[in-house]
Amino acid sequence: MFEQFLQKLIVPADTKIAMLILDGLGGLPRTLGGKTELETAHTPNLDALASKSALGFTLPIGPGIATGSGPGHLAIFGFDPLKYEIGRGALEALGVDFELGPEDVAARGNFCSLDEQGRLTDRRAGRLPTEESTKLIEMLRAIHIDGVEIFLEPVKEHRFVFVMRGTGLRDTLTETDPLKVGVAPMPVKALHPDAEKAAAVANKFIQQANQMLKGLQPANGIMLRGFASFPEMPQYTEIFKLHAAAIAVNGMYRGVARLVGMDVLPVPGTSLADEFSTLEKFWPEYDFFYLHFKKTDTCGESGDFDGKVAAIEEFDAQLPRLLALNPDVVIVGGDHSSPAVLKSHSWHPVPLLLYGRNVRADGIAEFGERVCNLGSLGIMPAKHVIPLALANAGRVAKYGA
Amino acid sequence: MFEQFLQKLIVPADTKIAMLILDGLGGLPRTLGGKTELETAHTPNLDALASKSALGFTLPIGPGIATGSGPGHLAIFGFDPLKYEIGRGALEALGVDFELGPEDVAARGNFCSLDEQGRLTDRRAGRLPTEESTKLIEMLRAIHIDGVEIFLEPVKEHRFVFVMRGTGLRDTLTETDPLKVGVAPMPVKALHPDAEKAAAVANKFIQQANQMLKGLQPANGIMLRGFASFPEMPQYTEIFKLHAAAIAVNGMYRGVARLVGMDVLPVPGTSLADEFSTLEKFWPEYDFFYLHFKKTDTCGESGDFDGKVAAIEEFDAQLPRLLALNPDVVIVGGDHSSPAVLKSHSWHPVPLLLYGRNVRADGIAEFGERVCNLGSLGIMPAKHVIPLALANAGRVAKYGA
Repeated sequence: MFEQFLQKLIVPADTKIAMLILDGLGGLPRTLGGKTELETAHTPNLDALASKSALGFTLPIGPGIATGSGPGHLAIFGFDPLKYEIGRGALEALGVDFELGPEDVAARGNFCSLDEQGRLTDRRAGRLPTEESTKLIEMLRAIHIDGVEIFLEPVKEHRFVFVMRGTGLRDTLTETDPLKVGVAPMPVKALHPDAEKAAAVANKFIQQANQMLKGLQPANGIMLRGFASFPEMPQYTEIFKLHAAAIAVNGMYRGVARLVGMDVLPVPGTSLADEFSTLEKFWPEYDFFYLHFKKTDTCGESGDFDGKVAAIEEFDAQLPRLLALNPDVVIVGGDHSSPAVLKSHSWHPVPLLLYGRNVRADGIAEFGERVCNLGSLGIMPAKHVIPLALANAGRVAKYGA
Repeated sequence: MFEQFLQKLIVPADTKIAMLILDGLGGLPRTLGGKTELETAHTPNLDALASKSALGFTLPIGPGIATGSGPGHLAIFGFDPLKYEIGRGALEALGVDFELGPEDVAARGNFCSLDEQGRLTDRRAGRLPTEESTKLIEMLRAIHIDGVEIFLEPVKEHRFVFVMRGTGLRDTLTETDPLKVGVAPMPVKALHPDAEKAAAVANKFIQQANQMLKGLQPANGIMLRGFASFPEMPQYTEIFKLHAAAIAVNGMYRGVARLVGMDVLPVPGTSLADEFSTLEKFWPEYDFFYLHFKKTDTCGESGDFDGKVAAIEEFDAQLPRLLALNPDVVIVGGDHSSPAVLKSHSWHPVPLLLYGRNVRADGIAEFGERVCNLGSLGIMPAKHVIPLALANAGRVAKYGA
């Protein structure tokens, strides 16, 4: 509702917005009264920017909700994460840079171990090495099913991506993993009559794959989960009238950005410095840049407090390269919190910094959880960041007289 | 939804609420790190009141939305500004103190210049002087159309208000302004069959008006835009059980107040002091007073920082006259921000002060944007101010047992 309302007010402008997402940015102190990762990090550039900015927090999904990166990104991209859902299969496909099309149904595939009666003995086939599963995937690519195209991509260990492409395929399908050993995987069933074709294709594929894998060890069977088709998302060009670009090293983030209509830019390497090089190179060509930094989350999830601090400092060192480009609006935030002490994504609001010429600056020369409490942005739904950035970029017309 | 819920809990009480709206109150500093208009103003009375109050901000419409005064006022009056809309024609009629009735359809009229083939040469007829357009309006009042009444009121330069009154008129009509010169104005068309009568009336009026204006210069034609009928608004007496009065000098604010069921009180002059005299005079007769101060916005929109500061100080000087009346609840706020540095309405949250015996006072002896960040009210939707004021006035019963 608010999205449709906003869309009518969007006007073009010759301004540039940069949204820098430190994945899992929000943290917790190691001990009560201590400093969080962000508070611990030595960040002279962020602190200087903060002094000219408004501070606060984003709430990605809702109170108490720790979010995955998919919904977390949809929210920070300006969408209602409860309205738009990216199914697990589609996320997995995006994660390996597979370009999902509108006629595709994707699923997360698992190699598994079956006994002679076809009952599961290991749901993950002993987490076989990725090189081995990659070879098996190459073998399974020989499978052809009339009327559809099948795509297979290895992911990691026992996991792979399965995509079927063709007219009349629907993703309302049951999963085959019974979630316990000692029983046989289940067949795929259509939850609605219009998914019968997709169910038949998936079952044929499983049957042929299991036939080809027969006698091998440990992976002699497959299972499919999380069937999902391409979610039709509003496009940045249309709803926000933004010519938007995404800079990310990991496939999933590139994929989600592509879903909402951003151009995914090539990055010459995998470091944050490489990402900033791409930012500099393409700066004249777009009016919105999303730049994703993964390391903060990786360290948070693995419990590496010091590593996360170092990652934030690495980010801080790159920040001047953006500021030298003289952006009109800068957002520094995250898609969710990942406190190292929790070793996981968490529900805590995520620190947010909004810089722009007409921001009502808070005059706080620091960026961290406790000073964000004093900021003027309060705790805002993540989906409201883009409207606010657009306003600060002179891209929202006045409502009514 | 919340509105209906609240309505059931409203109880009568012998208390008085005063809502003082400084139009366009919120501001920005002239330079980074400087003071806003409100922070610059010397406001001993507001500061003293602040020390006994709760502070915070209102968000009139939503994040990033700069609002016009119409929706901004509906919000601060307690209504969802996206649910209730006042069309441009209706706002224009309210602005000249025209009392729109339920059978009326209003439009914004323009004088224009046409060539001999009836094509537009100037959409605003050279912005002819108001005295001239007023004379033309007097002439056009001679037009009579069977079955309806027509009302015309001059506004300013080429602009006037057109109102048709009669049974069966609807406002779902197209506009006649093609928004470019070199082509003829378009006829009014009904967007729904039930607006055919209104379309016929409007077209007849345009035809006769153009006939009367023929040969004159520069205004020899008219155009009509923004057809809108009287929006049916919930009434203060019913939903909030408030006997409410409005004190405003400008027609539009009086009009919007009248729409929601406030009595519009006579003001003996046009100064803020005159408005406070009206407040004193009618104090015993009502339990809710809305007082509107325009100058803060006028200065903000014209970029007059010092003028806005002076206006706020003028307000501060009058404030003791209200406090001497011993109000139970006082709200000081705005309908939107109008920072002088932007010379326009803006999206920034608006400072809010809520005084009352049972308010959890913040103990901040100052009223300004940065201290409002520290206030206990946070950033609240403007439509939530009235429920909060009602509670503080002992007018909301407990919900449930």
